[in-house]
Amino acid sequence: MTGSQTGPRRRQEITVARIAELAGVSAPTVSKVINGHPGVSTATRRRVEDLIRQHGWHRRPVSAEPTAMVEVLFQALDSLWALEIIRGVERVVQSYGMTVALTDMHGRHSPHSEWIDQVLARRPAGVIAVSADLGDWEHERLASRAIPLIALDPYGEPHHRVPSVGATNWNGGLSATRHLLELGHRRIAMINGPGDLMCCRARQDGYRAAMDAAGVPVDPRFLCTGGLYVEPARAEAEALLALPGRPTAIFAANDLQALGVYQAALRAGLSVPGDLSIVGFDDLPLAQWADPPMTTVHQPLAKMGATAAELVMTLAAGGAPSHHRIELATSLTLRASTAPPS
Amino acid sequence: MTGSQTGPRRRQEITVARIAELAGVSAPTVSKVINGHPGVSTATRRRVEDLIRQHGWHRRPVSAEPTAMVEVLFQALDSLWALEIIRGVERVVQSYGMTVALTDMHGRHSPHSEWIDQVLARRPAGVIAVSADLGDWEHERLASRAIPLIALDPYGEPHHRVPSVGATNWNGGLSATRHLLELGHRRIAMINGPGDLMCCRARQDGYRAAMDAAGVPVDPRFLCTGGLYVEPARAEAEALLALPGRPTAIFAANDLQALGVYQAALRAGLSVPGDLSIVGFDDLPLAQWADPPMTTVHQPLAKMGATAAELVMTLAAGGAPSHHRIELATSLTLRASTAPPS
Repeated sequence: MTGSQTGPRRRQEITVARIAELAGVSAPTVSKVINGHPGVSTATRRRVEDLIRQHGWHRRPVSAEPTAMVEVLFQALDSLWALEIIRGVERVVQSYGMTVALTDMHGRHSPHSEWIDQVLARRPAGVIAVSADLGDWEHERLASRAIPLIALDPYGEPHHRVPSVGATNWNGGLSATRHLLELGHRRIAMINGPGDLMCCRARQDGYRAAMDAAGVPVDPRFLCTGGLYVEPARAEAEALLALPGRPTAIFAANDLQALGVYQAALRAGLSVPGDLSIVGFDDLPLAQWADPPMTTVHQPLAKMGATAAELVMTLAAGGAPSHHRIELATSLTLRASTAPPS
Repeated sequence: MTGSQTGPRRRQEITVARIAELAGVSAPTVSKVINGHPGVSTATRRRVEDLIRQHGWHRRPVSAEPTAMVEVLFQALDSLWALEIIRGVERVVQSYGMTVALTDMHGRHSPHSEWIDQVLARRPAGVIAVSADLGDWEHERLASRAIPLIALDPYGEPHHRVPSVGATNWNGGLSATRHLLELGHRRIAMINGPGDLMCCRARQDGYRAAMDAAGVPVDPRFLCTGGLYVEPARAEAEALLALPGRPTAIFAANDLQALGVYQAALRAGLSVPGDLSIVGFDDLPLAQWADPPMTTVHQPLAKMGATAAELVMTLAAGGAPSHHRIELATSLTLRASTAPPS
């Protein structure tokens, strides 16, 4: 109740006054901007935030103590993929005595317009954006409050100042395809996710690199794209399996897509792996429960979440990230959905 | 920065002084208790909280504005079951301009000892405890800050003052078993989850009620219990299928257990549903991807999460719950894993 007599608070009030003077506004207006309250024009808010940045308020608390939580922004909270990441983040965050706050963008790539104001009002220790695109406006506002931002599996190219965490997607695509080539397959198709999703682009580039290295031309009919879910991949696989000279193996960009390929094979009367080999990507728990159990590229999702959370904690404590871009290793998990072509 | 001159704050300070006088402690000590800060003995904290309760501070903000979030406490964040509930909670909470804070108990039934202090310090609008047991100590401390608590699928019998949300588990167990009876099965086994988990107890009671109503005795060898996961249920099912006069149908207490039964049937060389009918519970997305697609009891998990979140909002706004216990309807989803016995 009488916290305004303590040192840090007094230092902050002096600085608020200086910022107010430089911006030509009142001190309460500066406080409103700092604390994320409404009632300040966009122009004033930007002027105050620019001054705060220029005067080096980065990396230290500018208002009250941050709330003991880390914000996680998800493109879509709709599969075990998301849950594995949440578990990894939560374990680290809980070990710091904090909690995880979740926002679901329900499939959109950017958060709703009120999100950034709500985050600033909540004052988290940091933000992890998963397969999400934040604009310059959000970057600047987070930076003005010294709230660190980490990109996990960034949708597009992450902002050059934002540290990011991902997996070795290119290597994963390469090793999945090389495995099929080594079994003797030549007619290898790939069902990829959206090409503007960086991790999918990397998986496909790995596939192409393996094919090129083996001197096997990629049949352009064998490259298709669909949502990272069961149903769109089933439709793509049905079209592939109806082609003259159909593929003998299909590499899917995630495990859900691979399940769609299983279903297409079943409907076409093809046995897996006798008539068709299938490789997935992610190694979600459901891959081992598929019939036959799925050969898939293991992606350390919980560890990726934990790594992003540790980075947030480092930055929130004023430290520098050990690396600007961290890629954790993928590895091929061999099960029973691949075999030599018949 | 100068918020202490506003009305609500002044009113609160007067009350703090009165509580301090009654408790025989200083006003800052009362403030520490209200704001969840450390440095107060347990005895003093309890005395202050008792006085706060006695003096009717329920249902109105006792300190600063609550943080715009709802806490969700999970027994285990380890399956799509949890994710469906999170999605339902998040959608409602986001519509109120708030966020969801998650705590994973990693399989324990009660939160770690620091959890309640952390929650009080974060001042959420409310708490939803999912398959979790909170003790009197946690209940009292939440009540002393007027933080509403809702139990979702309570582990044991929920505290009589705590509103709860669940599904009609008994009816679900009844309709699954009745479906198998109507197909002509008599040797129907049930693999249940932990018997102290109330929803599992209700599912088994529904199974027994259907058997009794049909005049079919329950073979005690056909009632088994295991964790709500694939592997323990596979082991139980393998034992069941090795019995002389083995069951012709198995009802599992959730979809993951039912997948374990699929695996046991495969290993025993039994076809589903030709040799063995299987019914699950939950209707997670993976049920439709099983081979053959799984007949299962649909549980409206996202709607249960949304209902719990709406209850929190009602209580946080000072309203009364429409019902103290809400059970949302389950329904049988017929797919291809059940057929008449051969």
